Amino acid sequence: MQRILITGAHGFIGKHLAKHLASLGHHVSGLGHGIWPSSEASMWGVADWTNGDVHTANLRALQARNEPDLVFHLAGGSTVGAAIANPREDFFRTVASTVELLEWMRQDLPRARLIAVSSAAIYGAGTLGPISECAAGVPYSPYGHHKRMMEMLCRSYGDSYGLDFRVARLFSVYGPELKKQLLWDMCTRLAAGESPLTLGGTGQEIRDWTHIRDVVAALALIAQNDAPVQADQTFNIGTGTGVPVHEIAQLLIDAWYGNNSGRSGPTPLRFSGQSRAGDPFSLVADPQRLMALGHAWQTPLATGISGYVDWFRHATAR
Amino acid sequence: MQRILITGAHGFIGKHLAKHLASLGHHVSGLGHGIWPSSEASMWGVADWTNGDVHTANLRALQARNEPDLVFHLAGGSTVGAAIANPREDFFRTVASTVELLEWMRQDLPRARLIAVSSAAIYGAGTLGPISECAAGVPYSPYGHHKRMMEMLCRSYGDSYGLDFRVARLFSVYGPELKKQLLWDMCTRLAAGESPLTLGGTGQEIRDWTHIRDVVAALALIAQNDAPVQADQTFNIGTGTGVPVHEIAQLLIDAWYGNNSGRSGPTPLRFSGQSRAGDPFSLVADPQRLMALGHAWQTPLATGISGYVDWFRHATAR
Repeated sequence: MQRILITGAHGFIGKHLAKHLASLGHHVSGLGHGIWPSSEASMWGVADWTNGDVHTANLRALQARNEPDLVFHLAGGSTVGAAIANPREDFFRTVASTVELLEWMRQDLPRARLIAVSSAAIYGAGTLGPISECAAGVPYSPYGHHKRMMEMLCRSYGDSYGLDFRVARLFSVYGPELKKQLLWDMCTRLAAGESPLTLGGTGQEIRDWTHIRDVVAALALIAQNDAPVQADQTFNIGTGTGVPVHEIAQLLIDAWYGNNSGRSGPTPLRFSGQSRAGDPFSLVADPQRLMALGHAWQTPLATGISGYVDWFRHATAR
Repeated sequence: MQRILITGAHGFIGKHLAKHLASLGHHVSGLGHGIWPSSEASMWGVADWTNGDVHTANLRALQARNEPDLVFHLAGGSTVGAAIANPREDFFRTVASTVELLEWMRQDLPRARLIAVSSAAIYGAGTLGPISECAAGVPYSPYGHHKRMMEMLCRSYGDSYGLDFRVARLFSVYGPELKKQLLWDMCTRLAAGESPLTLGGTGQEIRDWTHIRDVVAALALIAQNDAPVQADQTFNIGTGTGVPVHEIAQLLIDAWYGNNSGRSGPTPLRFSGQSRAGDPFSLVADPQRLMALGHAWQTPLATGISGYVDWFRHATAR
């Protein structure tokens, strides 16, 4: 049994990670933003929830109750759009919060391990095919730049103070509780009866879709691995298979009607042909390092999408 | 005549830069830490000095008096040792101050140009010979990591908001007013009569020594250049010639006695052989981009060192 802290535990990934770690028998504390009654937090595996900034006072208070030997750092800005609209806010959420966390770990928890959760956005546009962890690239948007800076801070503390850290770069994570991005938007518009459904971009954009259940298993696996890793301590959390947006969008429409045979029939799918400036065409992981740890991707895309539609209907039912 | 803001104007480089720009006829405002009577600030060319953090309120107030069309950003942590001792403080001085400056420029001065002054510390150890601006490297100490993050922020604002910026990476800058590092320490110890003089390291460490007078001329030159530059907008401010520490140390001892023939004779120079962990062996610029702008290095090393000794004696005379 480990004592684990998750920053950003109230977010999409945080909740699932907490539940997974609690199911393995660990004690999970959480810190981040959100009013979360303890009855609900504990359903998600969070035994001790603090609603607040990642800051020394909050960290020391939770440490006094349960001193962590493992920290997952998920707190930070969570969307590209919000980061572009308010880069200063995204900087403080993603980068400045990390320095507060690292400084607390340096002073109070020098032997704890840190798993910093980053994003494929740091690779930026201009890649084709699977991307290795060492690929250079210009990060996409302030969101990607700030995630890269978060990684650099971990490396700086690793180099200068011996911080035991890993970086996990997430690709396109989806699953229940995800209330933003393509799948959420499509479900919302299908539920409103919009037809045809016109999406942005060309539909040819390629992403590496990963189910949240498999992603949190990968994060736990990385945290438990004591063997030496590459100098940059970084793992891509992706499948290695790219899927075009038009394909996943069609899967979702099929699941939407297949799951609900009372509906009138498939909604036609269109694409505007207009992409967001700088939006990478392709983001696909080279997951060799993760696979070498023995990770297995378990959720087929069609199953995962179908489950997402079920969750959406249940979550939005009145 | 331009209206110019210098952050960190009260520091070693800031003061000389202000004086140089004022001598060219520009109006110079300064912001940074330090009590600076206006009589003294104006001797250094600073017509409007604000003692305070790089923060919106201070920036807006000085903008109301004189709206800058050019900003030199020099504020930030200034020593490797201080950054290692207190990385959180160095982060806020160097990185968080930059986001405040950039956010103000994005909102209030979208057409102003920014010259961000960075450091060769971002190249880290492991280079031999002249380093080009595109060289990858692991920055040296939290100081170097934070300077790299400062550069990334500029690039992020350039990519997303069209900020007109340049990055200038300084190497080993010396000259009057420099009250730290090798030359200052040596003079202080020579003045105290220490003999022999034992310095850290092996004496073989190589640096690219640049006189402050030439450095501020280079910064002004970069600021005035409107021609397209490389994608990273970065210029090394170095001579391209590496000089071992034992050579510059001997130059200083020679100047010390040569300038003051009443002394008893040369102090023997020794080296401990012990280097600071991670201290780069060699940091020498490839200055091609700077030279292409027509910059000329004017101060020979022996002349510069001799001038430094004169300044030291004058500054510390009672």
